[in-house]
Amino acid sequence: MNKPLILITNDDGYNAGGLTSLVESVKDLGEVFIVAPDRPQSGMGHAITVNDPLKCFPTDYFGDVKAYCCTGTPVDCVKMGLYQLNGRKPDLILSGINHGSNVSTNVLYSGTMSAAVEGALEGIDSIGFSLTDYSSKADFSASQTIVAKITKNVLDKGLKIGTCLNVNIPAVSFNEIKGIKVCRQGRAFWDDTFEKRTDPLGKDYYWLTGSFGSTEKKPNDSDVYYLENNYVTIVPTQFDMTCHSSIENLKKQGIEL
Amino acid sequence: MNKPLILITNDDGYNAGGLTSLVESVKDLGEVFIVAPDRPQSGMGHAITVNDPLKCFPTDYFGDVKAYCCTGTPVDCVKMGLYQLNGRKPDLILSGINHGSNVSTNVLYSGTMSAAVEGALEGIDSIGFSLTDYSSKADFSASQTIVAKITKNVLDKGLKIGTCLNVNIPAVSFNEIKGIKVCRQGRAFWDDTFEKRTDPLGKDYYWLTGSFGSTEKKPNDSDVYYLENNYVTIVPTQFDMTCHSSIENLKKQGIEL
Repeated sequence: MNKPLILITNDDGYNAGGLTSLVESVKDLGEVFIVAPDRPQSGMGHAITVNDPLKCFPTDYFGDVKAYCCTGTPVDCVKMGLYQLNGRKPDLILSGINHGSNVSTNVLYSGTMSAAVEGALEGIDSIGFSLTDYSSKADFSASQTIVAKITKNVLDKGLKIGTCLNVNIPAVSFNEIKGIKVCRQGRAFWDDTFEKRTDPLGKDYYWLTGSFGSTEKKPNDSDVYYLENNYVTIVPTQFDMTCHSSIENLKKQGIEL
Repeated sequence: MNKPLILITNDDGYNAGGLTSLVESVKDLGEVFIVAPDRPQSGMGHAITVNDPLKCFPTDYFGDVKAYCCTGTPVDCVKMGLYQLNGRKPDLILSGINHGSNVSTNVLYSGTMSAAVEGALEGIDSIGFSLTDYSSKADFSASQTIVAKITKNVLDKGLKIGTCLNVNIPAVSFNEIKGIKVCRQGRAFWDDTFEKRTDPLGKDYYWLTGSFGSTEKKPNDSDVYYLENNYVTIVPTQFDMTCHSSIENLKKQGIEL
């Protein structure tokens, strides 16, 4: 039997430690093919490059693992990966491991998770992995067993069509991890503000800053809560954004013609 | 009573005809405040600017309507709009009118809809409007009555917390519009490919191309189907991307620890 084909990308760029760790964690489970951004692409969400061309060039950064760098976003990388595979369909798309968590509503801003959602749109089982440590020197050693276990489970058993997994891993030692929980996306939000500065020409510019916090009572069954309590969290994530329960209410309130 | 405060943005840039049309359609319903991208931002999805600063400067492009241009994405514009309003909370956030439809899974790629989803994340009723005509010279005249009617309904009756509306309008004369339908996001996808070219230095580059099509049998109850049949479509859209029905299945397949 052929080995499963695993397409891997991330949003921190091809040379991020989290990507190397992800490749190391799963390379015994299949044939790995990497298409990763040539520079950091954090916060790019589901952006695609429509008004400019892309470049995509091979790199030997990963030794004997076939890899490309792409000038686009994480979602561009998934599309380019499928194109470069020239008709071979991956069995699995993995994204990460992100330097920094992507729980709750961060699924919308996260390039890591948008790459996984793009995989689901392509009808391919996909997983986004994130570690709760934003540092470029984050220690991914405790993640490797977790990543391999979850990846193997998905390769063996598959996911529901139209879904992918959002996996967040606490940045603690392996022995401190309390378990793995399948749970829902929490209701937590960024409280944004901007720091206003003045450039040397006297013009104002602004840096986005803010803090992230939950609006929910604890304890609860959300990814935010379990991750804070040192569980690995898995949120099954879908691309159908319809609020089905609102359809009848809107009809009743006379918005149709 | 104070007039409702309406924050407006788009993804085609401040000088797009669809934005002017949206402002004209709703300016009698409230006090309008515009923060729009200073250039086209199509396909930016939910991207935010995290590694660079933003600029944001007033423009008199809209006459006596207060307006700013922002160097960021549509989602940045929503965040910047709330910042520039300095604590005043809009009653409504509107985005569009996009030049081109945003039905089905395009909700993920669309800067227009991501601005509306950002509004929902901020706890503010929000609507994204799109017209099925990509041309920069698209005719928005038939949209004005539709946009005003839907906006007034939402101002009067509100939306479920955590949701916004994805409104698509067929580019036909007002008399040809068959009605307004509240419906679900269709299952339609991009069949992507890249057109490979060679630059003057002999290096390859790629343009994303592709076609968009539905995988569903017709007739059905999706936005894709109704829009094709000259209905205005309204999809209630939520930021909770959890596939709740997958949680128990995943637990049963032994992915937890």
